[in-house]
Amino acid sequence: MDLYTNDYFMREALKQAQIALEEGEVPVGAVLVCKNRIIARAYNQTERLTDVTAHAEILALTAGFSALGSKYLPECRLFVTLEPCVMCAGAIFWSQLGELHYAATDPKRGYGRLDEPVLHPKTVVSSGLCEAESQKLLQDFFKSLRN
Amino acid sequence: MDLYTNDYFMREALKQAQIALEEGEVPVGAVLVCKNRIIARAYNQTERLTDVTAHAEILALTAGFSALGSKYLPECRLFVTLEPCVMCAGAIFWSQLGELHYAATDPKRGYGRLDEPVLHPKTVVSSGLCEAESQKLLQDFFKSLRN
Repeated sequence: MDLYTNDYFMREALKQAQIALEEGEVPVGAVLVCKNRIIARAYNQTERLTDVTAHAEILALTAGFSALGSKYLPECRLFVTLEPCVMCAGAIFWSQLGELHYAATDPKRGYGRLDEPVLHPKTVVSSGLCEAESQKLLQDFFKSLRN
Repeated sequence: MDLYTNDYFMREALKQAQIALEEGEVPVGAVLVCKNRIIARAYNQTERLTDVTAHAEILALTAGFSALGSKYLPECRLFVTLEPCVMCAGAIFWSQLGELHYAATDPKRGYGRLDEPVLHPKTVVSSGLCEAESQKLLQDFFKSLRN
């Protein structure tokens, strides 16, 4: 029996996005779950690390490889508060991730804008969980940038 | 006047690929050049680091951000011995790289298989330099795997 629901894990990812917001980063958070246990939590740190590759997904995947001692994550679920970009989708492809759950869509930079599939064919995808909460964080961030 | 040619830099990237081969990694190497000086050298380390994101390009870009203290690399040239994958092309996009030079094409995994452009519109791309040498390294690697 699953002790925690997908909704619970996405709320944990939102907490990571909230930390990013407080640190002046684009508020995107992620958690990586293996066998119903969170093995990595991460948030976007491109500003702090001065590294455009330091997206929440990349940091969570890298921590996951380390935690499991494996390059592949077929038994893992990644929860991320925003649709992954092309770079992150490419990383998710290589990882052979079991399930990808994202909250808000990103029509401009999300991998979904591409016609061809970029994820691994075995990766199951769902979206929309906690979408409004994720969008609110992103809107608050971009509003604060404009002010 | 440029002291070094693009050919010189690609040969330096090939040396990185050779190191990867000797370490049992898929032989792909990269060098990042800023103002005619190599600021980062890297080779694929996915096996050693147990991390599918540890492609030569990602490692070179990350070292470059650190060397320059900048998230953006519009004055840099990246020389890589194989056409970047979708993940690496996405990272190159975010970096706003000035020039991308790759040796061999990768019809199966290269970003060029996508219909839509994924690189930054300002990134100038060239390919084919030292192509035969790069292909030879890759063929040697995959031949050794089969034996």
